[in-house]
Amino acid sequence: MINTSVMTGLMELTPAQQLEFDRMKSIIQEEYAHFGFTAIDTPVLERADVLLAKAGGETEKQIYRFMKGDTDIAMRFDLTVPLARYVAEHYGSLVFPFRRSHIAKVYRGERPQKGRYREFYQCDVDVIGEETLDIAYDAELPRIIYAIFTRLAIGDFTIRINNRKILSGFMKHLGAEDQSAALLRAIDKKEKLSAEAFLDELRTIGLNELQVADVSRFTSLQGGTDEIIQNLRDMGISNAQFTQGLDELEQVVRLVRTMGVPDVAFTVDVSIARGLDYYTGTVFETTLNEYPQLGSICSGGRYDDLASHYTKKQLPGVGVSIGLTRLFSQLVELGIVNTDVRSVADALVIPLSDDELPYAYRAAEVLRKEGLCIDVYLESQAMKKKFKYADRIGVRYAVIVGKEEVQKNAVTVQDMTTGEKSVVSVEDAAQYLRRHQ
Amino acid sequence: MINTSVMTGLMELTPAQQLEFDRMKSIIQEEYAHFGFTAIDTPVLERADVLLAKAGGETEKQIYRFMKGDTDIAMRFDLTVPLARYVAEHYGSLVFPFRRSHIAKVYRGERPQKGRYREFYQCDVDVIGEETLDIAYDAELPRIIYAIFTRLAIGDFTIRINNRKILSGFMKHLGAEDQSAALLRAIDKKEKLSAEAFLDELRTIGLNELQVADVSRFTSLQGGTDEIIQNLRDMGISNAQFTQGLDELEQVVRLVRTMGVPDVAFTVDVSIARGLDYYTGTVFETTLNEYPQLGSICSGGRYDDLASHYTKKQLPGVGVSIGLTRLFSQLVELGIVNTDVRSVADALVIPLSDDELPYAYRAAEVLRKEGLCIDVYLESQAMKKKFKYADRIGVRYAVIVGKEEVQKNAVTVQDMTTGEKSVVSVEDAAQYLRRHQ
Repeated sequence: MINTSVMTGLMELTPAQQLEFDRMKSIIQEEYAHFGFTAIDTPVLERADVLLAKAGGETEKQIYRFMKGDTDIAMRFDLTVPLARYVAEHYGSLVFPFRRSHIAKVYRGERPQKGRYREFYQCDVDVIGEETLDIAYDAELPRIIYAIFTRLAIGDFTIRINNRKILSGFMKHLGAEDQSAALLRAIDKKEKLSAEAFLDELRTIGLNELQVADVSRFTSLQGGTDEIIQNLRDMGISNAQFTQGLDELEQVVRLVRTMGVPDVAFTVDVSIARGLDYYTGTVFETTLNEYPQLGSICSGGRYDDLASHYTKKQLPGVGVSIGLTRLFSQLVELGIVNTDVRSVADALVIPLSDDELPYAYRAAEVLRKEGLCIDVYLESQAMKKKFKYADRIGVRYAVIVGKEEVQKNAVTVQDMTTGEKSVVSVEDAAQYLRRHQ
Repeated sequence: MINTSVMTGLMELTPAQQLEFDRMKSIIQEEYAHFGFTAIDTPVLERADVLLAKAGGETEKQIYRFMKGDTDIAMRFDLTVPLARYVAEHYGSLVFPFRRSHIAKVYRGERPQKGRYREFYQCDVDVIGEETLDIAYDAELPRIIYAIFTRLAIGDFTIRINNRKILSGFMKHLGAEDQSAALLRAIDKKEKLSAEAFLDELRTIGLNELQVADVSRFTSLQGGTDEIIQNLRDMGISNAQFTQGLDELEQVVRLVRTMGVPDVAFTVDVSIARGLDYYTGTVFETTLNEYPQLGSICSGGRYDDLASHYTKKQLPGVGVSIGLTRLFSQLVELGIVNTDVRSVADALVIPLSDDELPYAYRAAEVLRKEGLCIDVYLESQAMKKKFKYADRIGVRYAVIVGKEEVQKNAVTVQDMTTGEKSVVSVEDAAQYLRRHQ
């Protein structure tokens, strides 16, 4: 027989896991809509030249790419490149600021390793401006992140906010622009190093003792959001980029508060860079307070120019992304999400014999009309087998129909957890199920 | 600049079209859940040997297949083969009858032509039994089709029901088993031919005049469901398969009625075969009464053995599928679906100046808390530009906040269609918007 397991690096869920995954995905989708973002979709398959216009190096190696006939085809590896193409292609019919959400699978032919997937869901939301985009949109993203992770209820979280200009300005101030790539990497892994090892790392990069002291001071800023901002001001760095970044950060923090995100849910974190090229202003990461080892579960930021490869229009934007496949697998591993077997159905209707099937099915229809999800057991089987099915699919209620129930124009509702039974009229059954949900 | 249009054979929608597409997809998804079907997902990428275990001929030619490293990878071309693999793989943790829905994209490298897509959504629902599966499940599928197309509201429709055993039995009775493939094809295209051309076609296949007369009589049965069944009985065909098929069809019709599908929504149609190999019993097609040219928009049937390539277990099943991408494109072409520009947001909150932004955003939060989808215009722009945005995104209401509104602790709600304005308190605004939705 053929091996039926999925290829390594792909995620396939049991029905119970899928139910929980879909619930989380729906929450993200609903919250994006809640903030007025319009959902789009793009094909998984793109012409390779379109998809690779900007890519290179590692990304290019990871892409699934193949010929079909004489077309050079590639599978999308993120949702940002397709967004850039989409905006360029549909420019005339879009309204700016263009607020779009996109929740879909992307593909990377990576060497499989723990936590890396070859097919995974990204849940993206971006606002694209025409030539300019107000910084207030930067602030709205933490508001959306806050809404989503509050509803997901996977524990306390912290939205970490920084501005790339602060980092770039600081590098210039240091006179360490040549070492900036190595320095950003060092800052990025600071939390994993001892204080002494971090200083050694800085020396290895080639910083002098004055520079090391400055970096140490810069990355050690602690305290509340306002305190950190004040301390950054007090560093007395006069570099224009640094100052602009700090002003922007201050503005974002003020607006984030205005929009209703409580201080306990966000912080300023000057160590966040989010790579070297793409982001140009505000950057975000989100961490779970109890599980810092998961790293950032929702990241993004501001960029100057979305679609320079596809259009001459200047299209600045700001967005964030949730890597749901990876997050879900981590939460399953930590035992945080509930993947107990349970049915999508609110109740299973069981006709005790074939004679009661018509009555039972009509009862099911009454319950469905009330919006309930109803499974009806239609096999002619022994009673025991019918209840075993109810038990194994994990449905909360059995709605039993035998001769007696038909005579009384009623049904027996049995709570599958407690075994408790109640005889109610078909008309009252929906309300009964709802009350006990 | 790079060409940003999608490859031929791929569908990419504008935001307004996407909103409508997603609405239709949600209806299908909700109705599948409504009947207690559990949603699953499988990877788009499969090992080629798994996907091609059963395929061959045309299917194999159409598959997107490529090597990555030393893995021979193929993209799924339907959701049935992945279902078979899924059931074999997860057999031990599934409960039978296993009721699963799967709504996802599939891929076929077809030569692009009108109405053919290389990437398209299939919306599948199947019930899989263990060794046996009660025929009542066959009857439940028309019930689900009825629920879906009633809610989709794209016009009157007819669910056409047949049983493959009637066709096979009839072939045996005719003594035309050698010509059965050609005969099924002829019967399939009967509606497109004149009566005379159809008879000629039958003669071309090699049927004698007696056989031609029999086929003509068989395919000309008309009238109500019960009448057709009676006429089939009256043909006096004693072939056992024919009789069994007729018995099953009668049972399905009886149960379809029991389950609440009105006679006006379904019919018996003995000309439906749905291909030669796969289906073994009940078969379905669904047509729109006003648009027969669209062909079947929802088809399926009963099969004896889902997963013989992956497991020794005998797994009979019954299912249907909606090809949503193709259907949607046809409905757009016919102008049946509403793809007018309109926002996902129920209202756009407009602060007249930056001073009112904090108040305006808090008002937006109050409305969101009531479950409304709210966009807030955050650019510092002239009033005119703000209203132009509201107009162009197609939002129904603008919620305007100026100095006066702040003083009164109120907002001005403007109906963007009629221009009508009302000043209401922030607390009453949600109710106002809902009442006027």
